[in-house]
Amino acid sequence: MTYRAPVDDILLALKTAGGLPAMIDKDLLAGLDEDTIKSVIEEAAKFGGDVLAPLNRVGDAEGCKLEGDKVTTPKGWKAAYEQFIAAGWSTLPCDEAHGGQGLPEVVSMAVGEIWNAANLAFGLCPLLTQGAIDAVTAHGSDELKRIYLGKMVSGEWSGTMNLTEPQAGSDVGALRSKAVAQGDGTYRIHGTKIFITYGEHDMTDNIIHLVLARLPDAPAGTRGISLFLVPKFLVNEDGTLGARNDVKCVGLEHKLGIHASPTCVMAYGEGEGAIGYLIGEENRGLNTMFIMMNQARLAVGVQGVAIAERATQAAIAYANERKQGSKLGDKSGAMTEIINHADVRRNIMTMKAMTQGARAICMATAGQLDMSHLAKDEGERAQAAALAALLTPIAKAFSTDIGCEVASIGVQVHGGMGFIEETGAAQYMRDARILPIYEGTNGIQAMDLVARKLPLEGGKTVQKLIGQFKQTVAELGASNLPAFGKTAERLDGCIDALIGASAYMGKTLPTNPEAALAGATPYLLLFGLAAGGSYLARGALAAVRDGGGSGSAEQVALARFFAENLCSGGAGLAASVIDGADGVLSLSPAQLG
Amino acid sequence: MTYRAPVDDILLALKTAGGLPAMIDKDLLAGLDEDTIKSVIEEAAKFGGDVLAPLNRVGDAEGCKLEGDKVTTPKGWKAAYEQFIAAGWSTLPCDEAHGGQGLPEVVSMAVGEIWNAANLAFGLCPLLTQGAIDAVTAHGSDELKRIYLGKMVSGEWSGTMNLTEPQAGSDVGALRSKAVAQGDGTYRIHGTKIFITYGEHDMTDNIIHLVLARLPDAPAGTRGISLFLVPKFLVNEDGTLGARNDVKCVGLEHKLGIHASPTCVMAYGEGEGAIGYLIGEENRGLNTMFIMMNQARLAVGVQGVAIAERATQAAIAYANERKQGSKLGDKSGAMTEIINHADVRRNIMTMKAMTQGARAICMATAGQLDMSHLAKDEGERAQAAALAALLTPIAKAFSTDIGCEVASIGVQVHGGMGFIEETGAAQYMRDARILPIYEGTNGIQAMDLVARKLPLEGGKTVQKLIGQFKQTVAELGASNLPAFGKTAERLDGCIDALIGASAYMGKTLPTNPEAALAGATPYLLLFGLAAGGSYLARGALAAVRDGGGSGSAEQVALARFFAENLCSGGAGLAASVIDGADGVLSLSPAQLG
Repeated sequence: MTYRAPVDDILLALKTAGGLPAMIDKDLLAGLDEDTIKSVIEEAAKFGGDVLAPLNRVGDAEGCKLEGDKVTTPKGWKAAYEQFIAAGWSTLPCDEAHGGQGLPEVVSMAVGEIWNAANLAFGLCPLLTQGAIDAVTAHGSDELKRIYLGKMVSGEWSGTMNLTEPQAGSDVGALRSKAVAQGDGTYRIHGTKIFITYGEHDMTDNIIHLVLARLPDAPAGTRGISLFLVPKFLVNEDGTLGARNDVKCVGLEHKLGIHASPTCVMAYGEGEGAIGYLIGEENRGLNTMFIMMNQARLAVGVQGVAIAERATQAAIAYANERKQGSKLGDKSGAMTEIINHADVRRNIMTMKAMTQGARAICMATAGQLDMSHLAKDEGERAQAAALAALLTPIAKAFSTDIGCEVASIGVQVHGGMGFIEETGAAQYMRDARILPIYEGTNGIQAMDLVARKLPLEGGKTVQKLIGQFKQTVAELGASNLPAFGKTAERLDGCIDALIGASAYMGKTLPTNPEAALAGATPYLLLFGLAAGGSYLARGALAAVRDGGGSGSAEQVALARFFAENLCSGGAGLAASVIDGADGVLSLSPAQLG
Repeated sequence: MTYRAPVDDILLALKTAGGLPAMIDKDLLAGLDEDTIKSVIEEAAKFGGDVLAPLNRVGDAEGCKLEGDKVTTPKGWKAAYEQFIAAGWSTLPCDEAHGGQGLPEVVSMAVGEIWNAANLAFGLCPLLTQGAIDAVTAHGSDELKRIYLGKMVSGEWSGTMNLTEPQAGSDVGALRSKAVAQGDGTYRIHGTKIFITYGEHDMTDNIIHLVLARLPDAPAGTRGISLFLVPKFLVNEDGTLGARNDVKCVGLEHKLGIHASPTCVMAYGEGEGAIGYLIGEENRGLNTMFIMMNQARLAVGVQGVAIAERATQAAIAYANERKQGSKLGDKSGAMTEIINHADVRRNIMTMKAMTQGARAICMATAGQLDMSHLAKDEGERAQAAALAALLTPIAKAFSTDIGCEVASIGVQVHGGMGFIEETGAAQYMRDARILPIYEGTNGIQAMDLVARKLPLEGGKTVQKLIGQFKQTVAELGASNLPAFGKTAERLDGCIDALIGASAYMGKTLPTNPEAALAGATPYLLLFGLAAGGSYLARGALAAVRDGGGSGSAEQVALARFFAENLCSGGAGLAASVIDGADGVLSLSPAQLG
């Protein structure tokens, strides 16, 4: 089973959820037009399908190997990476001043979906490098930018993010790594970091680690953390590589999935200390990281969409091939492809609708991120930034949760063969399982949504977004298209449930925060259903307006399925949010065992 | 993380869902009393915890090895199996005439949960042997019973079920293996079978294969299948082992989970043909198999409960140990165990409630199976058989679906560590994933429920069961216990949704079977929620009546959580059943891609 990027679906999401036409109309994209973007995505589709996708299974089977402190990536990995950077893919979203192409976030996320669908373990390397580039771009000194950014943007050097320590996972404030100023503008870093993705590998000449650590006199907790750039090899003034820095990989994790992505234990300063350079201000490292957080969380959400798309394609291919049983009513005894069975069709429709709904949510988030940078009016930028902030935890958590669910349904569609590793369906499920965990667990996303995002602008941000959803319901009603069935009714019910649950949250958070947080997870899911249903309906309405045809029939059917079969659960989720907390909290931790 | 069998929870389910007290009162259990059953379960708890559980992780890491046609089980497996049979555990539910202890199904399932929670891959060996024993007991000739049953019951010989062929999975009627009568009462068997659990291994001297095959003149499809007993070693008149039969293992599958359970490709008759003995009548093999099907499906449902219990225990232990973040409102900066965070508590409550709900459903099914054999009145036996038949697909599908979900939540509670294999949480998730697939996929269970079970007794069986659920709602109302919160209301709403969806199914199945089947999966889930919620509430009411205390507080809390946070989704599922079919079916298979 190979992977074919769903170019039309991606373009539809770019346009109807990502707001691309408006950005072009308002001349925010420096002359970039739809045709150019389409051809970028088509080229990415070719590269992903031809070069990256064939390595996905071998990468899983072979994994990475650690010998001494050297990590070897699977066969073919290094050559693929060379092709990737030679084709300029790593430069796409980066600043033109440092050799980037300056494409908007919506395009970067669209292309990112393709890399990660083709090969999630591979896709993590550019994803992490991009995060490091963004941090250096936003907060690095001119000197750091001059020395490092060019080769990071070109992809010649990769980047990492070093936050986690054994005692400090979600609770970053608990980290203990130390940084000591040397008086010459450099620092010496000591400490152990775990779960460092692509912390060591053989695909690039140098690896640029961004490391959170504490100065000796730093305040406790999150206000005493600084961010440092620590290169694997020190870099001379002329850009050539100098001495090996005092940082090395001392362990690789044996993981459930993404075997080809090396997850490293990194030891900083086993000798005299790793030389590091401060990024931003002392003790403000976490703020520096937070700036990238929306973008990184969105990128992980896109990974959820990606793995869901890949799993869906595999399931459809298998269901079109595998024959079992007869068609309903056929007494001839002839076997039929299992896609003809109603229950399998429900599975496939669930997979498709969830995938497209999550894609639309991610694209809407990316569009707001773009507007938060590009809009000409300051008020518009602020409004977009607030909407992006609100949407980000939903994009991350909803998309990665459905990524796992869709991949699991994919195994089910394959029947017994799904449990056999060679089919590939099981790999998608294993790979997907990290996504709800890293870059802030989905529980943390839900709490972020409730505690930090709902109160944005005194609640006006969420009201505005819900107003947009309601607008789509009105347009559905006005369209009068019988093929939509009960789409408007079910979507409207789901949005009303969201309104009720949001009001409860607004009231409860200040008075009984524990009760509010006890409902955070179903609240986020409810929000995701209302958003996904709205964006899919909006996309379907646009497809119908654009002339109908087979594409619009598919979009209408998916929007309908999403509303009638997924949004229909909205009221139940709201009940769980509003009435469920006492049940959640009625047993004390001691009683829980 | 070790496993401790939840003896009290199991006993509560035995009594309040399994109907044990009534069976004892009616003197149906040959003098067996509660204390004896309790001590059997306590002994099983010791054996599972001390002997089987410690082998679970090593079994996963090591897996089985095939060299030539010999399969080697992981280190410690054979010794554990010897202890297992020496302690007489394999004889528990078997006929006393063949050396069994004749314990009822409810006890057998309770003990089966313990084996499978301790070690799912190990538990499959006795589970499959039991199926073979039941088939030979029910339909074997006296000669076959005399020669084979004693050693199968004692566990000296294990058993297998050989149904699947590459082209014949769920569609058993498509199988092609051949059987030719030799004129001396024996048959020669030729064919390849796949997915044969414990088809070859080193734990017993002989393996007794039950094999479905076709006679040369057999009708096509399911009416032309016969069942044969094919021993690995032929057995002499005096019970000693004779020549090696013409059957061997020619491949082991590389699977997502249950690595220590060998999943074999079996070649029958590569030489002159494997010698087999007919069980039951020619061409009636499938009927013979069907007789065991309710019991085998229930046993797989119990596996779902088992893995959920194991995953829940691991998550609770981790959440009580791992410190991240501060308690809400604590400004001291002290870290707290994550079980103190509301969202983690929701996860743990979900795991516990789903597990106990599924256990109760399985126990109710087992209780009806027992009554279908043991009740003194023929009408009562028939009624129980119908209820067992109705409950079986729910027990299988609901319990295995929640098994996967609970195991996945378990990974999530572990955060990044959950994705690392050494923690064990990932193994539970991998192991669990086969359960919704084998012994009839959960889609097939849902179709079985809708198409075959709802029409039982002209719909009276389902009405009777729903009437029992409603009775529990009435008792909840009468109890007037504030700690139940909205349990009665939410459960009642869920039952009403089930009534509405059942009426829709009854009306739609004859007129538009495809639409009915398109809603089969959400219908089954809805049924599972109504049943699980009812049985948990019944158990909680019983615990309160029995004197309250901390046990009853826990049961009340779990029943409440189940009703307020899971049953609350019932109306949405009913909407999906009743209004969702058009959306499911609106794209043709060709349009699906």
